[in-house]
Amino acid sequence: MAGSNRSADMEQLDGPAIVLVEPQLGVNIGAAARAMWNFGLADMRLVAPRDGWPNPEAGPAASGADHVLERARVYPTTAEAVAEASYVYATTARPRELTKLVLTPEAAAADIVRRQAAGERVAVLFGRERTGLENPDVIAANAIVSVPTNPAFSSLNLAQCVLLLAAEIRRQGVAHERAVYETGETGLATRDAVDRLYAHLEEELDDAGYFWPHHKAEAMKASLRNLLSRTPMTDQDVRMMRGVVRSLSETRRRKLAEATQNDDGEGSAAG
Amino acid sequence: MAGSNRSADMEQLDGPAIVLVEPQLGVNIGAAARAMWNFGLADMRLVAPRDGWPNPEAGPAASGADHVLERARVYPTTAEAVAEASYVYATTARPRELTKLVLTPEAAAADIVRRQAAGERVAVLFGRERTGLENPDVIAANAIVSVPTNPAFSSLNLAQCVLLLAAEIRRQGVAHERAVYETGETGLATRDAVDRLYAHLEEELDDAGYFWPHHKAEAMKASLRNLLSRTPMTDQDVRMMRGVVRSLSETRRRKLAEATQNDDGEGSAAG
Repeated sequence: MAGSNRSADMEQLDGPAIVLVEPQLGVNIGAAARAMWNFGLADMRLVAPRDGWPNPEAGPAASGADHVLERARVYPTTAEAVAEASYVYATTARPRELTKLVLTPEAAAADIVRRQAAGERVAVLFGRERTGLENPDVIAANAIVSVPTNPAFSSLNLAQCVLLLAAEIRRQGVAHERAVYETGETGLATRDAVDRLYAHLEEELDDAGYFWPHHKAEAMKASLRNLLSRTPMTDQDVRMMRGVVRSLSETRRRKLAEATQNDDGEGSAAG
Repeated sequence: MAGSNRSADMEQLDGPAIVLVEPQLGVNIGAAARAMWNFGLADMRLVAPRDGWPNPEAGPAASGADHVLERARVYPTTAEAVAEASYVYATTARPRELTKLVLTPEAAAADIVRRQAAGERVAVLFGRERTGLENPDVIAANAIVSVPTNPAFSSLNLAQCVLLLAAEIRRQGVAHERAVYETGETGLATRDAVDRLYAHLEEELDDAGYFWPHHKAEAMKASLRNLLSRTPMTDQDVRMMRGVVRSLSETRRRKLAEATQNDDGEGSAAG
């Protein structure tokens, strides 16, 4: 969706190692690389990829994240791929027969970020397409990551699993503002500027006889003022709205001139 | 990764509406449906899908989420697709020139969950592949959702965007009300009501010669429309603002009558 700039700011989080165990299709390896790099992860490890490595189908699916594929390392066994890690997570459905810590992606990401901040090296295992991780890999892992999907429908593919976890790691690992006002080149209006806009509007409406009946005038003014308070406005917006009020209320000058030329006492010019 | 059971527990969150604007490939529509249903969303809307609807390529890509495709509704315009929504989010990169609330998926999901808990109907727009949403759709939206990806590489596809937002909505979807808009006895205005308010305002301003010089008219209209989108309005607010516009622009009736009694061709009554 957003544009990308591959040369600038080649940033990278420290990890974790994303370990694809016995992946079958090159396109899935490429899509996983793309998902990783979207969120700044670049340490990909492949355990016994079925079709060997490199795989010509991976590149196109990576959509530009070649960087990750080029750096990918291949291992004959899972144990060798995670040998230097101090903590290993296995992504899988919740096991029925094992006693094991089961984490959501959110909880796993918090754990990963915390461990990495403490200097630990961690790895996350993803199983092969369709069949997932084999039991020995799950057993040897320190914890399980399970994505809480719709109980009636859970069909996440390999790259989607990687995407969800990588996004969560980035969300928790990179300081960022959760919500900001993008205001272009102009700043947010001061309260004073909004007050003056309101005063202008009220004056014109008063002149137009808008605040009627009189006993409701105060409530009407409160509603109007309240609506303006609720609206985040820039300086430019305030200037625009003052122009709008002026324009609407000064139309009468032109209309008046036209109407009196017609020598017509009725409001024929009114829309 | 996890097994699926399509017959059991067909659960569904209430929304939001997931609106794909001018999607091009059936496989992407199917993949988006799959991503939605993985996290329990089922209200898909298609705006002018390039290859018509139904699209035979969507089904296989949905991997079993046919339920969502069968219920999908098609609209000729974005405005019609979101007509009954009171709040609309546009997924896009951060805009450079608009004043607009920009939310992460996390913050947007919190906002969506809160609004839905309060009975609001909300919609999220996703643009077409590669080019994304057009400016008018972004301007008319109330807020922007932007996924904070790696600044050096941002190549999320349509279904991945839907996946990330849907997962986040589900994660936060546990019933909780952190803050609500107290709207008194009136409900939040629908998008359609706001559209009609804007049309009324634009018409009056056009009549008043506000949109000048002509080469700036479109930019002026975009700014005005954007300001209205940013403002949470109740039905009562919309009625009030229509009264305000009418009052300011129709003052001329009264002034006309007064002025012609004075038999004065100049706009002496103008403030």
